[in-house]
Amino acid sequence: MAIQFADRTQVDELSRLALHLVDIAGPIARRHFRTPVAIDEKADNSPVTVADRTIEGEIRRVLEVRRPDDGIIGEEYGAARADADLVWVIDPIDGTRAFVTGRPTFVTLVALLYQGRPVLGVIDQPVIGDRWIGIDGRPTMANGRAVRARPCPSLDRAVLAATSPDMFQDGERTAFDRLGQAVRMVTWGGDGYQTGLMTLGLLDIVAESSMQLYDFAALAPVVAGAGGRMVDWQGRPLDAQSGRTVLSVGDPALLEPALACLAG
Amino acid sequence: MAIQFADRTQVDELSRLALHLVDIAGPIARRHFRTPVAIDEKADNSPVTVADRTIEGEIRRVLEVRRPDDGIIGEEYGAARADADLVWVIDPIDGTRAFVTGRPTFVTLVALLYQGRPVLGVIDQPVIGDRWIGIDGRPTMANGRAVRARPCPSLDRAVLAATSPDMFQDGERTAFDRLGQAVRMVTWGGDGYQTGLMTLGLLDIVAESSMQLYDFAALAPVVAGAGGRMVDWQGRPLDAQSGRTVLSVGDPALLEPALACLAG
Repeated sequence: MAIQFADRTQVDELSRLALHLVDIAGPIARRHFRTPVAIDEKADNSPVTVADRTIEGEIRRVLEVRRPDDGIIGEEYGAARADADLVWVIDPIDGTRAFVTGRPTFVTLVALLYQGRPVLGVIDQPVIGDRWIGIDGRPTMANGRAVRARPCPSLDRAVLAATSPDMFQDGERTAFDRLGQAVRMVTWGGDGYQTGLMTLGLLDIVAESSMQLYDFAALAPVVAGAGGRMVDWQGRPLDAQSGRTVLSVGDPALLEPALACLAG
Repeated sequence: MAIQFADRTQVDELSRLALHLVDIAGPIARRHFRTPVAIDEKADNSPVTVADRTIEGEIRRVLEVRRPDDGIIGEEYGAARADADLVWVIDPIDGTRAFVTGRPTFVTLVALLYQGRPVLGVIDQPVIGDRWIGIDGRPTMANGRAVRARPCPSLDRAVLAATSPDMFQDGERTAFDRLGQAVRMVTWGGDGYQTGLMTLGLLDIVAESSMQLYDFAALAPVVAGAGGRMVDWQGRPLDAQSGRTVLSVGDPALLEPALACLAG
């Protein structure tokens, strides 16, 4: 059952604000995308760093005016009032490597936590123009349309997506490879975008590591509202204290076999 | 020095035809992209298979009428007159996994071989609207603008792209990992699209395996016309008889150190 984090009018207002925040981010991301950059440019001046900081700065400025009592956690500028009931979590550019190499599969992620639990999430790809919004207890909307992940009753029929084999540490690569062997197909390079694609019925499992709160908070309500499940690799629900691994499945029937595979 | 495969008028005519072929492919690819598909759909009826076959069928039909003496080699329907001086090489959807999972980073590849050597190549991404054309002895054009890969004098500053760790066989993974350790950053999931992005100065090295003629023939003239180099992992130039590995560099200074890394 969904915990009621606000009344209907408040939820509508908060979701409009979340969409306004990604509307601010999009033009900034597009302006810096595919900007030519010398190979020895300092990292601080790179287009992705400038886009990251400009977007998060603009979003925080709006939140400070519109929601002065809410907390904010951002990838670039850290935490403010992180113990508030409602905390906004911002990843201005998720998919840094996609952004810097010119692939329009990076996303801007905006989440809202209520008492540490993600209750609202927006995934926005501003070059292609793909946008998902997930709100606790409501169907996930993609580009204005309610969406649902596809049924996939067994691992051997599933398509698995992950961002990079370089994100795994210690035994994680071995665990992931067991899952990779059990599924029909593995595809690489997606970042937060691939979780959105899962809710469109285009893939079945996303397994990631090296994840921070700002990487997964926005994804959780999007997955839940499309009928899927999202936990860590030990099967625990995700909250502000969660660790580095994330497993998302479109069909809940995949959850136990996928966790068993990862556990070995 | 470029071998003259045709006079200027003929080259202009052949390049217009190559662009016409990808103009045919684009609407078909877009029509089948992100089509909902049941998880147990037979592979023969999958959207990507239908798109692959429809595109290649349409392209071959045009070539049979317009260039009846030229050869054709396609991913789906095999070879016809493969010993002709001029042979068209078609990969209707390069990046099958990107296509089926809804990422608009698949491409249509059209190449022309002259006596077995790629002399003209088109890379087309019809959802985003990115198009590259490379012609022997001319600058590569991307979306109507001449482009050039960026200078990158040493491996430790280079961005390396590859499609999937699953494409490597035998010692290839170890060889690739040596190169991955030597560069600044590795990014995954690009297919032929990432070679196009290299000519925009967004990445520096592409290393792939499990490549067929139709996967790399169109890329070679695009790389050459942007100032780069493209060979196999043993440093041999690519032609119709080339094997499974491909190495592309934007800055020719990277060629020897990258080959040395791969050789171990």
